[in-house]
Amino acid sequence: MTTSDTLQSIDARTGQPQGEAWNASTPAAIDAAVATAAQAADAFAARSAADRAGLLRALADALESQRETLVPIADRETALGPVRLNGELDRTAFQLRGFAAELERGAAHAVVDDPAAPGAPPAGRPHLTRVRVPVGPVAMFSASNFPFAFSVLGGDTASALAAGCPVVVKAHPAHPELSRQTARLAQQVVAAQGLPEGVFQFVEGGSVATGVQLVQAPAIAAVAFTGSFKGGTALARVAAERSRPIPFYGELGSVNPLIALPAALQAQGAALAETLAGSICLGAGQFCTSPGVIVVRRDASGDAFVQTLADKLQALAPHAMLSAGIRAHFDHGVGAWRAHGKVRPLVDGAAAPGATPRPFLAEVQAANFIADAALHEEVFGSAALVVRTGSAQETIDVLRAVGGSLTVTLWGAGDDTEDNRALVRTATQVAGRVLFAGVPTGVAVTAAQHHGGPYPASTAPFTTSVGYAAMDRFLRPVALQDAPGWLAARNGVPC
Amino acid sequence: MTTSDTLQSIDARTGQPQGEAWNASTPAAIDAAVATAAQAADAFAARSAADRAGLLRALADALESQRETLVPIADRETALGPVRLNGELDRTAFQLRGFAAELERGAAHAVVDDPAAPGAPPAGRPHLTRVRVPVGPVAMFSASNFPFAFSVLGGDTASALAAGCPVVVKAHPAHPELSRQTARLAQQVVAAQGLPEGVFQFVEGGSVATGVQLVQAPAIAAVAFTGSFKGGTALARVAAERSRPIPFYGELGSVNPLIALPAALQAQGAALAETLAGSICLGAGQFCTSPGVIVVRRDASGDAFVQTLADKLQALAPHAMLSAGIRAHFDHGVGAWRAHGKVRPLVDGAAAPGATPRPFLAEVQAANFIADAALHEEVFGSAALVVRTGSAQETIDVLRAVGGSLTVTLWGAGDDTEDNRALVRTATQVAGRVLFAGVPTGVAVTAAQHHGGPYPASTAPFTTSVGYAAMDRFLRPVALQDAPGWLAARNGVPC
Repeated sequence: MTTSDTLQSIDARTGQPQGEAWNASTPAAIDAAVATAAQAADAFAARSAADRAGLLRALADALESQRETLVPIADRETALGPVRLNGELDRTAFQLRGFAAELERGAAHAVVDDPAAPGAPPAGRPHLTRVRVPVGPVAMFSASNFPFAFSVLGGDTASALAAGCPVVVKAHPAHPELSRQTARLAQQVVAAQGLPEGVFQFVEGGSVATGVQLVQAPAIAAVAFTGSFKGGTALARVAAERSRPIPFYGELGSVNPLIALPAALQAQGAALAETLAGSICLGAGQFCTSPGVIVVRRDASGDAFVQTLADKLQALAPHAMLSAGIRAHFDHGVGAWRAHGKVRPLVDGAAAPGATPRPFLAEVQAANFIADAALHEEVFGSAALVVRTGSAQETIDVLRAVGGSLTVTLWGAGDDTEDNRALVRTATQVAGRVLFAGVPTGVAVTAAQHHGGPYPASTAPFTTSVGYAAMDRFLRPVALQDAPGWLAARNGVPC
Repeated sequence: MTTSDTLQSIDARTGQPQGEAWNASTPAAIDAAVATAAQAADAFAARSAADRAGLLRALADALESQRETLVPIADRETALGPVRLNGELDRTAFQLRGFAAELERGAAHAVVDDPAAPGAPPAGRPHLTRVRVPVGPVAMFSASNFPFAFSVLGGDTASALAAGCPVVVKAHPAHPELSRQTARLAQQVVAAQGLPEGVFQFVEGGSVATGVQLVQAPAIAAVAFTGSFKGGTALARVAAERSRPIPFYGELGSVNPLIALPAALQAQGAALAETLAGSICLGAGQFCTSPGVIVVRRDASGDAFVQTLADKLQALAPHAMLSAGIRAHFDHGVGAWRAHGKVRPLVDGAAAPGATPRPFLAEVQAANFIADAALHEEVFGSAALVVRTGSAQETIDVLRAVGGSLTVTLWGAGDDTEDNRALVRTATQVAGRVLFAGVPTGVAVTAAQHHGGPYPASTAPFTTSVGYAAMDRFLRPVALQDAPGWLAARNGVPC
């Protein structure tokens, strides 16, 4: 990852630079981008939902039309491979069109209306209509690991534009060339739709200063961020310490505990082990929902499951990681597990320096896991920790120790028992999504989705960054009291 | 206001202490209160909506049954008068029962359900059901100015209990005896309902340390606060700087601009001036929604309106203020306006030291108001600043300078004009509630209400502290993926 003030496209497989480096956005350019977005805010807020839907569909069309250009650049800069990247582009276009359909259904402008009631308060009241208004310009921080779906035209941008908010996108420096090309495409579409250029602004730079300047800019009304625990926590504090604090919607790290109960393992332990191994290695483990803690009872079915999981992982060969920086973090995290006195490696095929890393699996007893907060931290990559428990209560204690996660997966909770009810209650207390089948990697884009969870999974656990409710982050409620007829006729939207 | 570690009931009219002082909660007692609440969280979350509705109704009944005891104590500690205080108790009971009715309508457990869709992603997806779960123990900071409706059993407590969250109430030290008696009542009701005592916990103390300890307590999951800009901003930062940050729902100060357009003043300027004078003096101006900035054009109808407003205010005699501390702040704020070279006093009947303060009104030109941020700060009490503008654009600029407010009132925007549309758009950008008739004091408790607004009105502008949507602050969304039949049958609630 570039941390200075230049950007350089790098081949993720070879580590070799591609083409010339270029300069990051200057502080003056960042100020200008924010000012241009702010100038467009009122006019964009006044555009109809149909206009905004038209913009989103045109962006989806443009992405698909440039597939042959964009996917090869993405593949070179991320090593994620064309199959995954074509699928991710499909998902990104699907998401843009999904928000357009939500707008056409009237989702952004649904109102709550209470007619006036006669008499004195508290029962008597004026006419109140709650509407929602765009919050204003949004600073959007792209992620490294989804160069389409959580990047320049990803879910944060789509949901902010759907809400009627201009976006100032900060590119991720790990795929700078793809980001530039995608941004250029977006700018062309905005112009073709007859919208002011401030609706989509673009800045780039890998330094801390670039991000801080963007979050501190007075005209920025909210921040959407997908990235590391460290970066997200630091920027969230910058947002909270502004003279006018603003919402910071940060999706940070997550260990995504997966609990394999005896009922599931006795029935189909071998098949589940194979599925889980695939999930751990998917995209070289570079998913925010990658299962990093596997909770298994100390019994015969548990022993067999762990052995099969280890065998299946041993046979898998994840592709190259996104960047040298992410690779270094992975090596550091796995190294700490290797060196930990209470952690026993099960799969540990060391890779040659520079070569693609091998999957890593290790085992620890629940009491030792619970006692050491360092073991609750995410290791981003194809690595997981098996935590062995002796009771249903100890399983709950492991979940409580993890504390906050995007997902918890519960295999084998199909029966309505006291233990399962307690486990489900705990799972819902620590996660934003609780799965009862399948693996947590893969997040459906739909109305019922919730991609968030208690800190550190999210800095705003009541909101989601995936699914159509993501738009709610940028639509602030306002109650209109005794609105005149002309405003009521416009459904409370003074456009 | 007590700022040391003792509490003392004080007669607000005479300033004389009533009875003995007593010690604030010790740090150990605060820890114990939080621990007791945390122990009750899982059991309370597992209780049905009907059980929670029963608790809220029983609290309303208990408040009403103790009216003859509580109102005189409240009157002595606040000087707000029995008429207002009986009305406020009615509103508090209405609010508790309103949340009960919301629960009985199923509001807390409404789900969003997306059936599984066949095929590969992005269109193919698993079965997803979004439910909401209680966030956990809530720290509730009572306000000084509504000893029932925003205090021990006020809207924050009602909405947290409705959501299934235990509350740890921190009493306001300006009405400590009323707080103790109300808390005792609540504890009796909780016990009579067969609920664990942790569902309602009570701490008291006027020092900064008491509040900080509560916000920092690891088991506290969210904070609800109504109070000063300074106190709320400081505690919001404490919440953001925890090792696990939590939501801080703070309703802070607000200047509540009221814009009297020529169309309204030409039609009924004199009547509006009288209504406005009453609103400025209501409860001695100690309302978070008290109109503090009156925006009037520089024209003949504006001159007449300001003159009538001054005359009406001159004739009003607000009652004593809540406490010596609040009185001192008022005197300081008015003193700063008096000493300001660009501010011209219009009504300035100085009170004798210790006597009840007189209403205060002053005038300033828009350009001078916009240029001086000090003039955008709330003066809590019966005081307002008339800002004279020369154009529709200058009116908008005044609103933008204010920046964030609980309310904006627009009188005379009954016609659909370009100017009115722009003004309404700006009003919705800076306020949580926009009124087109009447005065901002008085906040209806209903589903469509929104009592919040951009910072500094609220630290969480997407949420409301009044009305039934206040419950949403304490119900965190969770997506259940492929939930088993037994859980689906319970509507996703594992109780």
